[in-house]
Amino acid sequence: MSATPPEAPSTARRIALPSPFRLTTGGALYGAAVAVETYGTLAPARDNAILLFTGLSASAHAAAHPGDPSPGWWDAMIGPGCALDTDRYYVVSVNSLGSCFGSTGPASLHPQTGQPYAGDFPELRVEDIARASQAAVEALGIETLYAVIGCSLGGMTVLAHAALFPGRARGLVSISGAMAANAAAIATRSLQREIVGSLLQSGAAPAQVQQAMRWARKIGILSYVGTELLEQRFGRDQAEPYAGRGSGTDFEVESWLEHLAQKFVRTFDPWAYWTISRAMDLFDFGTFGVAAGPDGLRHRGATDTGAAARTLQLQQALVVGVREDLLFPVGQQRALAQTLGAAGIDCGYVELSSPYGHDAFLADAALFTPILSDFLGGLARPNLPRALQPNVRSDYA
Amino acid sequence: MSATPPEAPSTARRIALPSPFRLTTGGALYGAAVAVETYGTLAPARDNAILLFTGLSASAHAAAHPGDPSPGWWDAMIGPGCALDTDRYYVVSVNSLGSCFGSTGPASLHPQTGQPYAGDFPELRVEDIARASQAAVEALGIETLYAVIGCSLGGMTVLAHAALFPGRARGLVSISGAMAANAAAIATRSLQREIVGSLLQSGAAPAQVQQAMRWARKIGILSYVGTELLEQRFGRDQAEPYAGRGSGTDFEVESWLEHLAQKFVRTFDPWAYWTISRAMDLFDFGTFGVAAGPDGLRHRGATDTGAAARTLQLQQALVVGVREDLLFPVGQQRALAQTLGAAGIDCGYVELSSPYGHDAFLADAALFTPILSDFLGGLARPNLPRALQPNVRSDYA
Repeated sequence: MSATPPEAPSTARRIALPSPFRLTTGGALYGAAVAVETYGTLAPARDNAILLFTGLSASAHAAAHPGDPSPGWWDAMIGPGCALDTDRYYVVSVNSLGSCFGSTGPASLHPQTGQPYAGDFPELRVEDIARASQAAVEALGIETLYAVIGCSLGGMTVLAHAALFPGRARGLVSISGAMAANAAAIATRSLQREIVGSLLQSGAAPAQVQQAMRWARKIGILSYVGTELLEQRFGRDQAEPYAGRGSGTDFEVESWLEHLAQKFVRTFDPWAYWTISRAMDLFDFGTFGVAAGPDGLRHRGATDTGAAARTLQLQQALVVGVREDLLFPVGQQRALAQTLGAAGIDCGYVELSSPYGHDAFLADAALFTPILSDFLGGLARPNLPRALQPNVRSDYA
Repeated sequence: MSATPPEAPSTARRIALPSPFRLTTGGALYGAAVAVETYGTLAPARDNAILLFTGLSASAHAAAHPGDPSPGWWDAMIGPGCALDTDRYYVVSVNSLGSCFGSTGPASLHPQTGQPYAGDFPELRVEDIARASQAAVEALGIETLYAVIGCSLGGMTVLAHAALFPGRARGLVSISGAMAANAAAIATRSLQREIVGSLLQSGAAPAQVQQAMRWARKIGILSYVGTELLEQRFGRDQAEPYAGRGSGTDFEVESWLEHLAQKFVRTFDPWAYWTISRAMDLFDFGTFGVAAGPDGLRHRGATDTGAAARTLQLQQALVVGVREDLLFPVGQQRALAQTLGAAGIDCGYVELSSPYGHDAFLADAALFTPILSDFLGGLARPNLPRALQPNVRSDYA
């Protein structure tokens, strides 16, 4: 036992995907890659890797490290002694395919035209994000994952990963995710896409597109944060001075929204936002439980989440929800846990309370530390009572 | 007792306001008027009038009548034998000052320029809506109101009316209102204003302004309806065929939103929307409890809802909230009822459950019928145990 833990090695790199990389609904990407950051050391047995899937707008930079000391989006969770303990685990964080932080997406240059894909980027599905990340994991020489963990969009992507690659991960953690977006979430995100997409489609000037992105992001933020949090933090505090009509700064809460929206717009590509947002709404875990239609897709008509869950091969799963989450209401997480449990998977379910709502995994990360620590520690114990049971049990089927 | 109730006479008219009509924050309107519809007959004693305040976007046409058989926004509630029983009461429904259905607002022609006020319409407050409506009531020869009733914005306006005109109404009903908007509601509405206002301010083409209005209205609708209702009605149903990027019609819920938004945009003036929405956010009942500042206004700094409530002179009050209301959470209605009760007002409080959320008073009106019937009937009974107590009781003060 050393007095100070050894500094976890961390690397940021770009990993080439097989070319062409064929997408779920027929498109293909040539010369595509994903940006990856890793934290910790891959064990000689290559059995300690955790694949981390992000939310809609995050980069692979989940934790600060000497090569990039800027704050990561899950700093509190990744490091020596943290829940994702880099003294034990090798954490692989991937920027989603379709995003704009090093992974191939609509902002990338089309290899044939030399111009950004923009609206010509092929249709992306959550399944493609899972497949690109799995390809990166394989390129790192990892055959079996200790666990896959994902938050928000990532909480959907872990399900796609588990369905597409049964037996490739021992544990699965879905945080504030869902088997499929509900109608209100679809309505909220599709409105964001309409605002951004209509300006992109009409060839509007960059300043107009940026304005649309700010509006879309504000709609998004209002779906992420809890109502009570805004009330506690801002109440009816007024901005001084009132800057006039159309300026939108009567109240402090408006200035706060504007600040966050501007920050986002500076870094996120509009077509990437549109593309990943749509993938999120089109995802439906239940499609893995039914046969594909004549077009090779399973995106319309009947779905079967129970049958989908019975195809998974997991040692254990954990589903975490937040009661104040407006976008992925906790009932959706409860339904996921019940579905996995009914399929014979040893699935834990934890319901947290945080004023941060959907953003709790980012803004209230300390709440999640003991839960993830316990789950990941438990995965290491061999011969758990239920762990070696087959996934499909007749009494649930 | 007649076999069929006599048809209630109904009239629609425009009532001139005193000119100039001075507004709360310094502006003045010349030759202004409000559109009014009345249902029922004013009793010889002129003691059966109910003043009805609307939500943000409604006209004075609360009920269909022979002169205008088109559906009213509260048809289920107004008529012979209804909660607002036109055999007993004389219902006065006023289109809010600042609106665009006959009352003077930003779409009206400025008497000096002959052009619409548009962005030159003076700053409007909820107090001005209350005062203009009271002026209309006085023009109808009504000195004392049997009751004032308001929903949403109207649930705020009844409070402004009661504070500005103490003793002029016996009963007050606030439905899905609040003493002041909370931070989330302010953020939601201010974003709508920013979208519409920025295009209005930049002199954008009408089609662009209409597009902005559609987006703003969609944000509004998503804040009105309950999440569960959308899920029950639309779930993940998909539209056929998918019309392409930027078209915003992947899912049925999007088509529904688009339909409602287009309907709204065809009838509502953008500047009126901006103006009334802002009035709603700036309203703060607690300002009636503190002395005005050097600028004659009470809109910043300390407020005192308890002191404001103690200035009211009401026989009885009723506050109704809906648990699924996201925009005016039920806690706000509970707080209003407690504040009125603590000020010695005989105040009832009813909490309803409806999947329609904030829209329940429109879409689930039957829920409100027995509550309003009972309250209005009770107001007529003389010498109620608490009714003749003074408003300010020392044990509450």
